[in-house]
Amino acid sequence: MAGNSFGKIFKLTTFGESHGVAIGGIIDGCPAGLKLDLESIQNDLDRRRPGQSAIVTQRKEPDTVEFYSGIFEGVTTGTPIGFAIKNANQKSKDYSHIKDAYRPSHADYTYDEKYGVRDYRGGGRSSARETACRVVAGAIAKQVLSDLKFNAYVSAVGEIELHKKLHEIDFSETEKNPVRCPDAETAAKMESFIKEVRGDGDTVGGVVSCVIKNVPKGLGEPVFDKLHAELGKAMLSINAVKGFEYGSGFEGTKMRGSDHNDHFNTDGSTKTNLSGGIQGGISNGMDIYFKVAFKPVATLMQKQTTINAAGEEVEMQGKGRHDPCVVPRAVPIVEAMAALVIADYFLQNKASKI
Amino acid sequence: MAGNSFGKIFKLTTFGESHGVAIGGIIDGCPAGLKLDLESIQNDLDRRRPGQSAIVTQRKEPDTVEFYSGIFEGVTTGTPIGFAIKNANQKSKDYSHIKDAYRPSHADYTYDEKYGVRDYRGGGRSSARETACRVVAGAIAKQVLSDLKFNAYVSAVGEIELHKKLHEIDFSETEKNPVRCPDAETAAKMESFIKEVRGDGDTVGGVVSCVIKNVPKGLGEPVFDKLHAELGKAMLSINAVKGFEYGSGFEGTKMRGSDHNDHFNTDGSTKTNLSGGIQGGISNGMDIYFKVAFKPVATLMQKQTTINAAGEEVEMQGKGRHDPCVVPRAVPIVEAMAALVIADYFLQNKASKI
Amino acid sequence: MAGNSFGKIFKLTTFGESHGVAIGGIIDGCPAGLKLDLESIQNDLDRRRPGQSAIVTQRKEPDTVEFYSGIFEGVTTGTPIGFAIKNANQKSKDYSHIKDAYRPSHADYTYDEKYGVRDYRGGGRSSARETACRVVAGAIAKQVLSDLKFNAYVSAVGEIELHKKLHEIDFSETEKNPVRCPDAETAAKMESFIKEVRGDGDTVGGVVSCVIKNVPKGLGEPVFDKLHAELGKAMLSINAVKGFEYGSGFEGTKMRGSDHNDHFNTDGSTKTNLSGGIQGGISNGMDIYFKVAFKPVATLMQKQTTINAAGEEVEMQGKGRHDPCVVPRAVPIVEAMAALVIADYFLQNKASKI
Amino acid sequence: MAGNSFGKIFKLTTFGESHGVAIGGIIDGCPAGLKLDLESIQNDLDRRRPGQSAIVTQRKEPDTVEFYSGIFEGVTTGTPIGFAIKNANQKSKDYSHIKDAYRPSHADYTYDEKYGVRDYRGGGRSSARETACRVVAGAIAKQVLSDLKFNAYVSAVGEIELHKKLHEIDFSETEKNPVRCPDAETAAKMESFIKEVRGDGDTVGGVVSCVIKNVPKGLGEPVFDKLHAELGKAMLSINAVKGFEYGSGFEGTKMRGSDHNDHFNTDGSTKTNLSGGIQGGISNGMDIYFKVAFKPVATLMQKQTTINAAGEEVEMQGKGRHDPCVVPRAVPIVEAMAALVIADYFLQNKASKI
Repeated sequence: MAGNSFGKIFKLTTFGESHGVAIGGIIDGCPAGLKLDLESIQNDLDRRRPGQSAIVTQRKEPDTVEFYSGIFEGVTTGTPIGFAIKNANQKSKDYSHIKDAYRPSHADYTYDEKYGVRDYRGGGRSSARETACRVVAGAIAKQVLSDLKFNAYVSAVGEIELHKKLHEIDFSETEKNPVRCPDAETAAKMESFIKEVRGDGDTVGGVVSCVIKNVPKGLGEPVFDKLHAELGKAMLSINAVKGFEYGSGFEGTKMRGSDHNDHFNTDGSTKTNLSGGIQGGISNGMDIYFKVAFKPVATLMQKQTTINAAGEEVEMQGKGRHDPCVVPRAVPIVEAMAALVIADYFLQNKASKI
Repeated sequence: MAGNSFGKIFKLTTFGESHGVAIGGIIDGCPAGLKLDLESIQNDLDRRRPGQSAIVTQRKEPDTVEFYSGIFEGVTTGTPIGFAIKNANQKSKDYSHIKDAYRPSHADYTYDEKYGVRDYRGGGRSSARETACRVVAGAIAKQVLSDLKFNAYVSAVGEIELHKKLHEIDFSETEKNPVRCPDAETAAKMESFIKEVRGDGDTVGGVVSCVIKNVPKGLGEPVFDKLHAELGKAMLSINAVKGFEYGSGFEGTKMRGSDHNDHFNTDGSTKTNLSGGIQGGISNGMDIYFKVAFKPVATLMQKQTTINAAGEEVEMQGKGRHDPCVVPRAVPIVEAMAALVIADYFLQNKASKI
Repeated sequence: MAGNSFGKIFKLTTFGESHGVAIGGIIDGCPAGLKLDLESIQNDLDRRRPGQSAIVTQRKEPDTVEFYSGIFEGVTTGTPIGFAIKNANQKSKDYSHIKDAYRPSHADYTYDEKYGVRDYRGGGRSSARETACRVVAGAIAKQVLSDLKFNAYVSAVGEIELHKKLHEIDFSETEKNPVRCPDAETAAKMESFIKEVRGDGDTVGGVVSCVIKNVPKGLGEPVFDKLHAELGKAMLSINAVKGFEYGSGFEGTKMRGSDHNDHFNTDGSTKTNLSGGIQGGISNGMDIYFKVAFKPVATLMQKQTTINAAGEEVEMQGKGRHDPCVVPRAVPIVEAMAALVIADYFLQNKASKI
Repeated sequence: MAGNSFGKIFKLTTFGESHGVAIGGIIDGCPAGLKLDLESIQNDLDRRRPGQSAIVTQRKEPDTVEFYSGIFEGVTTGTPIGFAIKNANQKSKDYSHIKDAYRPSHADYTYDEKYGVRDYRGGGRSSARETACRVVAGAIAKQVLSDLKFNAYVSAVGEIELHKKLHEIDFSETEKNPVRCPDAETAAKMESFIKEVRGDGDTVGGVVSCVIKNVPKGLGEPVFDKLHAELGKAMLSINAVKGFEYGSGFEGTKMRGSDHNDHFNTDGSTKTNLSGGIQGGISNGMDIYFKVAFKPVATLMQKQTTINAAGEEVEMQGKGRHDPCVVPRAVPIVEAMAALVIADYFLQNKASKI
């Protein structure tokens, strides 16, 4: 069933396979009258782009977005914004090794079981290439929410964690290194570990954290559409994500209520914000912060034994250029999905009042 | 904006405040011709009910569900199933202490900011009482999915964790103790810890895990509506939940791809199932398993300083009978939400084929 | 699939069969802070109620609505409004004549084909009794839109038509006669014709027209969700409706553009309003007007030959008390559906702006 | 708010302005495994295309559809089908006369009131050019429903009506004349009348009728999503449509129930089918037939007085090449929307069963 749309009011629908003609999407419900900064959209795309640094895949995809509609003389008109990103690589590769075998921990097997047919080239629709469209829409959502600041960053690569309290982090450091960890020393360790892993033909997982600042109070819709529930869904919908927690998260389960409760300041803010900026599913104006767990990339530059559609054992090895660790490129994707969620609730909230 | 519905095809919409006339809901899209086992529905409600054991709230709510429609001579007709659960407590209590103050880490403040008005009695709509409606619908969803088995259980209370591998767990043990931990020894420790915490007028968090067995292959809809994304949203929408992970979860981020990849058996099953039964957002027929983090209950039987709507500091103390730890009663809620998600995707999947 | 909800933001979901325990619904998305006039809700229900005059069905249904949630101290809280109307007649009747036969031009046959099971008592879910829930929700929608005026009225019964231009109609006349035709003389003819038809054990169709005044400019969402498209769907979803036209309607197809175009006054209003208050799917602030065609009631007090589920010919005759003509009671239903549509678009429109 | 999607399971979302870079759309939910006949898609586009005959607009738009995704080796993969149609005319014209004035009975004024900004070139989003995307999606929907036959045709142009009973019509005649009226003699009259009207610099309205054959029983979802309600919405969403009726329609309101009721044959079919193939909102397997009213085109080749955004009176005259009567080109659009509705319900219906 149709599952390629996200959002109710600020609504993104995407299309496209990794090695088809193009990927793209439609943003429906973007308010009229917004003067778009196209450069900042392309900038977010460039943060996600392959080949941007030595520790990510070296594939060549320029990822230039073309807008087809919804913008007139640089201003949104309230009509749907159609866009496409042409696939540079669409005809070049040899995918016979995938055509005849299911890659372990990929979506090859399940797509075949579900649809009975699949575009096997580069993972087809299950490729993370699709997230470029999310970045385009998220960059526009950020412009709808010009007062807010979305700060995603890498907080762990494998067992190497950033050990800083939230208030100690200087988010202007994030983009200064290829790992996107806002601490030069930790970033250097992560970078050298990623290189080591790549040298082994292996991959490793990691964690992307995000802090959203200046969120208006009152966003979020009880009961099922709690703000953090939709944020969680948004993050879990990103390729390779295995977990989501916000505020005190899993650690908070170990605490007692007397330590965990956030006591109020007289202006309605709280002293501790273990709630993570959301109470009862509704934003309270404090920073929203959360963590997103990414598994190690499944495509290895090592020989693996697997099966083909006939159920026979076959050997395979990753070809081409793949990411040894996905989190550096996932940072703008996490921000984009967060911006989509908040923009949607921001507009929903206007509809709650007479 | 309307946010009280869950599901696209098997769709639950709920209503009701903690101390209003009744809570209830409408299940729209339940297939026709299902002979309903009403006893098993009430049984799940009883597993969630207050007063069921010494370690949960001692409030008296019989929680008897009345069905108004959609069932004829014991069989579903395909028309919407309306139901209600009357509130036994609706007039009895004194809520002046809440009326005039915002309880810390509750939804009082955010509801007021969002709506400008709230039913303060017992938390109103933000009360976990609403989850009884989810249990009703989930119990029916389980019957739609009669081949599947939903096994939720308590895997942690505070720092006390169940240390068993999934295959070592005997799920028939879960209901044999009031904590709902499928290991008598660990359960006893948890129980005594909950009592200790309660004795302090305090509360504690915990973790509910869930294993779903016999899931058909092919459920889940890429891209945004991945099966685990919707499961995550479902769990995060439950009161007090702070995190969700499935398969290898946050631990998996520390692994290398060569250890993390699930290698195939020749029948399409995998040897390790770190994927948690879902690949590329689509079920692969293996067990789906996940964890849900619950924060400590915010209502304490201790004096706390807080603020009122005028921004003045006031003192307050929890009244009445509250849960010292929510996870034992959350077990059937987690199962219910899981069943709602799977039933919806099960029906969606039928629509993917000509 | 779930089809018992209407609206995106101001959203009604209904349940209930004609002879089940109760009918009812949930209004999700009603803005907070609205002081509800419960009397005017019951008043609209009474306008739809059986037994209100000599020319409608003489069934006894008090149709008293009970509210379960979403209203606190008389004011909406922004949470879902659950309500029910108990069925007075649920156990009394003998339906063996319907159980064993498909009534011509009823939904008996199609429900059986679709669901394989049906609640045959009084038509079950296909009974127009369900529209009482629409009237409840519509009466609340009217209060959201307190500046607007919804004027539905009977403009034709069989071949007897009201021959008045819109500006000649005095809407205060509508409720002064049992037919709800705002012209005493025409109403008298219609009334006597309905009595004649009833005397024959027969039924007759008719037309309900509606004029909505004071609609704000800018409501309606191109492309698929044009304001008149949703109004049309709303009306066509009412039992027995066979057609909908707005503005110049079918007559307008015969005109030339030079006669049909609405020329502007300098304040943006138009001189002729053949557009019916909607241009390009968006309201222009002029009166919205439309017509709804109702077929003759299918239940006759005459013997008819029909078939049973085995495909055998059987004879049947309507029992009990039925409407000889549905339009007088349809007037508040048309208003209710119009109010639901406009309220939804009114709230949607708030979300179109930053 | 987002209003550019149609359908729940077979779901079309469109984008594009008349004179932007391209129009296009995404079809989400098309079942996998369908071998697409691309020629028949282009054929339907050609039936809608400008310049196809002497009685339609002579604009030059090749309207070639490019598919970007969702099709692999000629077969649908179950993933979203993205497509675009480039606008040939995007830069050529002078629109200063529209920029500074609101065309009567167009959407210029309401778009400005709603959005505060508009792409005035060729009507922008309100242009009927957008319907080309519907035709693409509808042509695919027809292939999902390969057993069904959608027969739309022109049944009236101005006061010239086709006087044939449904069973007398030979649908193979429809495409044999430029009017698309399946009766050579009536078509000739219509054609000459359209030419006369065009000679006057004027336009005229008309009616498109449609008969759908071989519809499976059981399609349609009570209560709000009745099959004919959704069909009505679909038709009313087409530019210039003012009315919709199905089965006996407005004429049926004049009948008595004893004449109007459709009596059953023993196989469940009916003798008269005044119900129009739908009973209680659900298809009964008989032909579905309905009529759609199109107003005269608003753009005239005559001088008209109108106003500008400042509220000043100005004179304007249509430029370029416009249709004197829209119904010949509307025939494939009506079929397309009908196919979209039926395909969606066809897939929904699969989800109603366990």
